[in-house]
Amino acid sequence: MKLYDLELSGNCYKVRLFAALANIDLELIAVDFLAGEHKSTELLKLNPFGELPILDDHGFILRDSQAILIYLANKYAGEAWWPSSPQQQAEVSQWLFVTANEIQHGPCAARLIDLFQYPLDKQVALIKAERILTILNTHLSEHTWLAINRPTIADIAVYPYVALAHEGSIDLSPYVHIQAWLKRIQALPNYVSMPGL
Amino acid sequence: MKLYDLELSGNCYKVRLFAALANIDLELIAVDFLAGEHKSTELLKLNPFGELPILDDHGFILRDSQAILIYLANKYAGEAWWPSSPQQQAEVSQWLFVTANEIQHGPCAARLIDLFQYPLDKQVALIKAERILTILNTHLSEHTWLAINRPTIADIAVYPYVALAHEGSIDLSPYVHIQAWLKRIQALPNYVSMPGL
Repeated sequence: MKLYDLELSGNCYKVRLFAALANIDLELIAVDFLAGEHKSTELLKLNPFGELPILDDHGFILRDSQAILIYLANKYAGEAWWPSSPQQQAEVSQWLFVTANEIQHGPCAARLIDLFQYPLDKQVALIKAERILTILNTHLSEHTWLAINRPTIADIAVYPYVALAHEGSIDLSPYVHIQAWLKRIQALPNYVSMPGL
Repeated sequence: MKLYDLELSGNCYKVRLFAALANIDLELIAVDFLAGEHKSTELLKLNPFGELPILDDHGFILRDSQAILIYLANKYAGEAWWPSSPQQQAEVSQWLFVTANEIQHGPCAARLIDLFQYPLDKQVALIKAERILTILNTHLSEHTWLAINRPTIADIAVYPYVALAHEGSIDLSPYVHIQAWLKRIQALPNYVSMPGL
């Protein structure tokens, strides 16, 4: 199973992290992002959105890091990380959509601006980051994990760009419950890191 | 089962639409959005994000329209709209995440600016709308439905803010394959409409 990968991407990292935690073998294919390889004809054929990561599971092609987490958990990790019961699955999925929206346009956007000079509005990104980090911190003041009282792909999806927030000049020190949760994730068996963490 | 609802919200509408298509009974509770009732203490207790819709299924509270679609399909509509097989579920979920990100910050944002005077950047919204509508149109030039060759919650999630694009001064006439797909959705048995459509 191949992952078209960029080492510095938090979206790629969450797939590498989940694969490590769930003992799933991935063959990493490094994509030359700075040279624009993700926008090459070949990769646009795999993902018309021109983004990474892309999964190739023996010819089954999948884009979007959250969709890839659902697929890997569903196919290779049983009920543990992505439960099938309607209530539990919905609770986990709420946080996957928070990742695609609030995390992406908050702490992730702030980092894209600082680290890769993306032409986004830094002030807007910081306001969105403060909002979602405040909600997250309050939620984690009452919960050990984001959903259903155990680590799931919700935690793995939200984790990277929150843990990397300092690379978007966001200070996590006011968010003590988030900090404790980051440490709990880092203590999971087979945890792997990425540059910047 | 109660839905805290706003008639003019495309996110609320997608839940009403899916419930109609799948014969699920919903008791609608109209929330006074203009008076800020969604930010009241009572509703913030149900959804700390201060947003609609919110589902209350006999005490099980769920926020986020995409998560609500997953829940309703999973619990009340069997395999038809939200398949359980890893490949099919991942294909459907890709488009749910597109809804939470690209649709939300493209055509949905443009409409929020025009219709409700949201303080967002219209030019940015229009650029994002053009990108996702172009990708969508190309995808629909080769597919009848967004995923797995049948109508799923992917179509129901993406549909409202694309169909309402004109309310954000976006002209859909260049996107002929999108227009044909909108008509296919409108022809589904038990389809219901909303103001603006």
